[in-house]
Amino acid sequence: MKEVGIGVIGAGRIGKLHGDNLCRSVAGARVEAAAEINLNDEHRAWAEKNGIKKIYKDPAEIWKDPKIDAVFICSSTDTHADFIMEAAAAGKHIFCEKPIHTDVKKIKEALAAVEKAGVKLQVGFVRRFDHNHKKVHDAVASGILGSPHVVRITSRDPEGPPLSYIAVSGGIFMDMTIHDFDMARYLSCSEVAEVSAYGAVLIDQDYRQYGDVDTAAVMLKFENGALGLIDNSRAAHYGYDQRTEVHCAKGCVQAANDLVDASVISTAEGVVCEKPMWFFLERYNAAFISEARVFVDAVRNDAVPPVGGKDGLEAVYIAMAAARSLKENRPVKLSEVRQ
Amino acid sequence: MKEVGIGVIGAGRIGKLHGDNLCRSVAGARVEAAAEINLNDEHRAWAEKNGIKKIYKDPAEIWKDPKIDAVFICSSTDTHADFIMEAAAAGKHIFCEKPIHTDVKKIKEALAAVEKAGVKLQVGFVRRFDHNHKKVHDAVASGILGSPHVVRITSRDPEGPPLSYIAVSGGIFMDMTIHDFDMARYLSCSEVAEVSAYGAVLIDQDYRQYGDVDTAAVMLKFENGALGLIDNSRAAHYGYDQRTEVHCAKGCVQAANDLVDASVISTAEGVVCEKPMWFFLERYNAAFISEARVFVDAVRNDAVPPVGGKDGLEAVYIAMAAARSLKENRPVKLSEVRQ
Amino acid sequence: MKEVGIGVIGAGRIGKLHGDNLCRSVAGARVEAAAEINLNDEHRAWAEKNGIKKIYKDPAEIWKDPKIDAVFICSSTDTHADFIMEAAAAGKHIFCEKPIHTDVKKIKEALAAVEKAGVKLQVGFVRRFDHNHKKVHDAVASGILGSPHVVRITSRDPEGPPLSYIAVSGGIFMDMTIHDFDMARYLSCSEVAEVSAYGAVLIDQDYRQYGDVDTAAVMLKFENGALGLIDNSRAAHYGYDQRTEVHCAKGCVQAANDLVDASVISTAEGVVCEKPMWFFLERYNAAFISEARVFVDAVRNDAVPPVGGKDGLEAVYIAMAAARSLKENRPVKLSEVRQ
Amino acid sequence: MKEVGIGVIGAGRIGKLHGDNLCRSVAGARVEAAAEINLNDEHRAWAEKNGIKKIYKDPAEIWKDPKIDAVFICSSTDTHADFIMEAAAAGKHIFCEKPIHTDVKKIKEALAAVEKAGVKLQVGFVRRFDHNHKKVHDAVASGILGSPHVVRITSRDPEGPPLSYIAVSGGIFMDMTIHDFDMARYLSCSEVAEVSAYGAVLIDQDYRQYGDVDTAAVMLKFENGALGLIDNSRAAHYGYDQRTEVHCAKGCVQAANDLVDASVISTAEGVVCEKPMWFFLERYNAAFISEARVFVDAVRNDAVPPVGGKDGLEAVYIAMAAARSLKENRPVKLSEVRQ
Repeated sequence: MKEVGIGVIGAGRIGKLHGDNLCRSVAGARVEAAAEINLNDEHRAWAEKNGIKKIYKDPAEIWKDPKIDAVFICSSTDTHADFIMEAAAAGKHIFCEKPIHTDVKKIKEALAAVEKAGVKLQVGFVRRFDHNHKKVHDAVASGILGSPHVVRITSRDPEGPPLSYIAVSGGIFMDMTIHDFDMARYLSCSEVAEVSAYGAVLIDQDYRQYGDVDTAAVMLKFENGALGLIDNSRAAHYGYDQRTEVHCAKGCVQAANDLVDASVISTAEGVVCEKPMWFFLERYNAAFISEARVFVDAVRNDAVPPVGGKDGLEAVYIAMAAARSLKENRPVKLSEVRQ
Repeated sequence: MKEVGIGVIGAGRIGKLHGDNLCRSVAGARVEAAAEINLNDEHRAWAEKNGIKKIYKDPAEIWKDPKIDAVFICSSTDTHADFIMEAAAAGKHIFCEKPIHTDVKKIKEALAAVEKAGVKLQVGFVRRFDHNHKKVHDAVASGILGSPHVVRITSRDPEGPPLSYIAVSGGIFMDMTIHDFDMARYLSCSEVAEVSAYGAVLIDQDYRQYGDVDTAAVMLKFENGALGLIDNSRAAHYGYDQRTEVHCAKGCVQAANDLVDASVISTAEGVVCEKPMWFFLERYNAAFISEARVFVDAVRNDAVPPVGGKDGLEAVYIAMAAARSLKENRPVKLSEVRQ
Repeated sequence: MKEVGIGVIGAGRIGKLHGDNLCRSVAGARVEAAAEINLNDEHRAWAEKNGIKKIYKDPAEIWKDPKIDAVFICSSTDTHADFIMEAAAAGKHIFCEKPIHTDVKKIKEALAAVEKAGVKLQVGFVRRFDHNHKKVHDAVASGILGSPHVVRITSRDPEGPPLSYIAVSGGIFMDMTIHDFDMARYLSCSEVAEVSAYGAVLIDQDYRQYGDVDTAAVMLKFENGALGLIDNSRAAHYGYDQRTEVHCAKGCVQAANDLVDASVISTAEGVVCEKPMWFFLERYNAAFISEARVFVDAVRNDAVPPVGGKDGLEAVYIAMAAARSLKENRPVKLSEVRQ
Repeated sequence: MKEVGIGVIGAGRIGKLHGDNLCRSVAGARVEAAAEINLNDEHRAWAEKNGIKKIYKDPAEIWKDPKIDAVFICSSTDTHADFIMEAAAAGKHIFCEKPIHTDVKKIKEALAAVEKAGVKLQVGFVRRFDHNHKKVHDAVASGILGSPHVVRITSRDPEGPPLSYIAVSGGIFMDMTIHDFDMARYLSCSEVAEVSAYGAVLIDQDYRQYGDVDTAAVMLKFENGALGLIDNSRAAHYGYDQRTEVHCAKGCVQAANDLVDASVISTAEGVVCEKPMWFFLERYNAAFISEARVFVDAVRNDAVPPVGGKDGLEAVYIAMAAARSLKENRPVKLSEVRQ
């Protein structure tokens, strides 16, 4: 089967991560070129080390390269929608890092372009590919536990981002809980029908000036009747806490955290185990490789990527509904926000 | 220090449990008498085996016995408020099984009588005395983790009660979640300010005819700013699932389930551990003893029982707010329901 | 079915424990009398509280009481063999706390008396009745894991006994490892054929003056071909560590420790869980009740007690072989020490 | 700091693993060339993909390449000692996969050559670099737990190798337990003074024809007074079971297995978790990268590699002592076998 020629747009941290994985760990992928708007010698050295022959400043070089079948869009969020449209116009299949965009109108424009061009689009909701969360999903999807009743998701970052980030993040639901909204759809195998959100500023009072909260609780009603509960905290301090659970008709499947190691030290003072892994990239290392493999396989086999534009859009809708629910202190139906 | 003479009202399952514990495991307690409305030879044999010299049909014998300093009210729920009032009028200290009553007016009447008589009242919210949940509470209350941010409670029964019970239970919030509402106040060290509730009939469609649900999710806002999430299921099938957690400013304290045993069996087919304990009385065996000891000590030392009338009343208020929230599909403030 | 009239010999800590359990938790048992050589008012009060009508100084009163069908021998070790013989001569069934005796000749004398009288004898190897260790045994005995290959036992006390105790204990193998030798026979479902023992004084150099060690490692060859490894420490400091495991042809069954509670506290400093339970009587509380029930049932149903004189004797033989192995630094076959 | 030019000898499974890691994950390493005796197009394609410019049939090309500072010897075991000597003679630092050789005379010859040439030698005892086992070691080495008392190691392969392999493996102690002998020295921070070994054929009777066993138990006396217990099984069936533990004066540090994932599925039938990881290369993936980094850093910083020729030799001595102990059914001192 033919290899997939790939162009990586954006050679920042995530772009280099995807590039490295594509070069080393994804069969059938051949990274033809990369593009980085702030191209410098460090980027060139990275490309050379990986055997990536061409690296440009301008992504236009990527769109017009006939050897490139698909692109990985890893540039800043505000460029995602436009690059999706340009890539689609050039007939390239697309893997786009999340989020597609924060503006629904822009997202729909991009999705329409993808539809029109008949190219594939996969969105980088990487947690779906994690061994733990995928296990929870598969157990539910297989039906062995019966229909889902209650979905529980806890998601806490070890430390909060800088205030300058919070100032422009779009709020906790659009920036942080959005991953859990996608996870909730994934685990429940259903769409969300209604959202009720509570929030509080408990960690850092500076969040108030941005009209944001650092701690949130969200309840969901799914279309299949199940209920969901999500809690987020911007700063857990003990690690990156990501636990998922689905309680079903015949039992319950839970995923605990991956810990730094499996040691236990027992003394008169107490029994100490390791903390959950701290770094997102480290915690989801295997999942990043997995999602890239799944995308490349979808291109090679002309299959539908398992997480696409609709998933990206729905997560944004749920985030919008949650923000409205928090603001107006009432449940908000998805039908209110869908356009 | 003087022993506390005790009269046990009601010699059903819970009454015998309390009686046994008081006779065998509670220092300073002397069970003087018991009263059981359906008095028969089985009750008499039980009393004799325990060295309880007097057992009556009529609780009036208990009220007038000068050797009795305190009573354990373990009779049917509809008698609790009246017995509290009679005991108070007789100057007896009172341990009353939950709930005090389902009617707020009646509860307040009873509490007023207790106040007037100046006797002590402890309510049987036994889970507070469990080694796991108490550990969570104590970690929060000690302040070592900083202020509470998020309280999570999962509470699932192994199997649902008979439909005949559901018909008169008062609904999931008054019958089942009420324990979790008390636990939420206990763990957060705060009052609840607002409630948002979702419910669904997912296990047994017969619940609909009683206007009840078998699966519920509840979000709480606490007066101290913390948020809470509770989920209940009437039938987990894998055991009695009771997990609590409080995420605080400096970390998180969680309590897992007590399992049937600590075995692990590994084969090519998989790795199998034991299920959570199945039976409520078995799971909370030590807690029942502990709450009785705490009550008797409070009487002996003229201390305030740690869980009393106010706690019983507040839990009912929260249950009422939750029921209204579910019915009207909106958040409900406690100020709406408090009388 | 008739109740079993019971006489408890020795009202020290263990005697009172057995007496309490028999009075409260063992159906079909009726404690008729107790005997305590240092009889005082505290013992009398204990007897009265439990409804035990007769308490004597002299066990002879027990032997001659026609209402007593069985006795629980809980007196000091040096009296066990003689009391077994007296009880057997009086036609009483016997539950005897471990060890039967430290002298093989004496043990065999007692066992012969039991055989001759045709009474039942159960030895108090209580750990066999523990929910964890019994689970390991049952998994092996059921055959679902195939034949046993490797038995692993770790047994560490939280703190060592006083030196005055060590002076007369008979050495680590006869005093401490003997429980693990019985456990090894129980879990492997086989006799031990050979023993290799290592020992060291690592905790308290004072052990040397008594020719004893405080740390030991023992390897076993079982008659069924399986191998065994036991390690003991007189002072773990973090609790009472009792882990068992059997690796079999088709998989492995392990028992972890029962912890003080199921809490987990996570902070930036680390993740802390509870320690194993500290106190032997607390840790094996349920097992003590279970072994008494099993004995009483054996008497009522004329069944063979599951752990009897032979088990007591074999454990002593293995301890003797281990002591010889340590002393002579060589493997020792059980055939060398059996008489 | 200068990069280390590296030559990889042997491009089989392990050679390619080391090569991949050196090219992708080890800073300061530059794989100049590789040599593979059965050189074919697959090897050439692998080299090209990794940006390894030169690949030869004959390792002599590696010895004479001035750009190569160090070699990774990943060829068949029987070539290790000779290649070490050739590399040393050529002044190359050496990373050699275990074992150095099975013949002590040959090993000492190679170590003498390394000493004479003044080059560095690191032996591939990869488990020392595993996050779990390293944690156990570091906790002991730090002294926070006091001196080590008991070292416990369980090591079971998921399935046994083909009989053709067993025929020439050198026996369980030289082929399998040798890793645990190195781990025992590593964890105890001490040399082994004496060995007692038991073995049995329990899994596959065909092992008898080769004079080998498939199940083994070994006790160790360390020079620092600690005791050790190792158990091995050629076929656990439930995964690759690698547990280590050191009980010390002030407490105990244990390492459990890394599992396939952190899921738990609870139903009426039971509670199921995942098995330990199955594949050696997968389980120790990070450790392989770590050991390569440590070696390259040692070369760059002119430091002593943490596991070298002496460690390789000592492990062989202990294996020889264990084999003699099993054969002659007696304890064997290391002083008997050291040459």
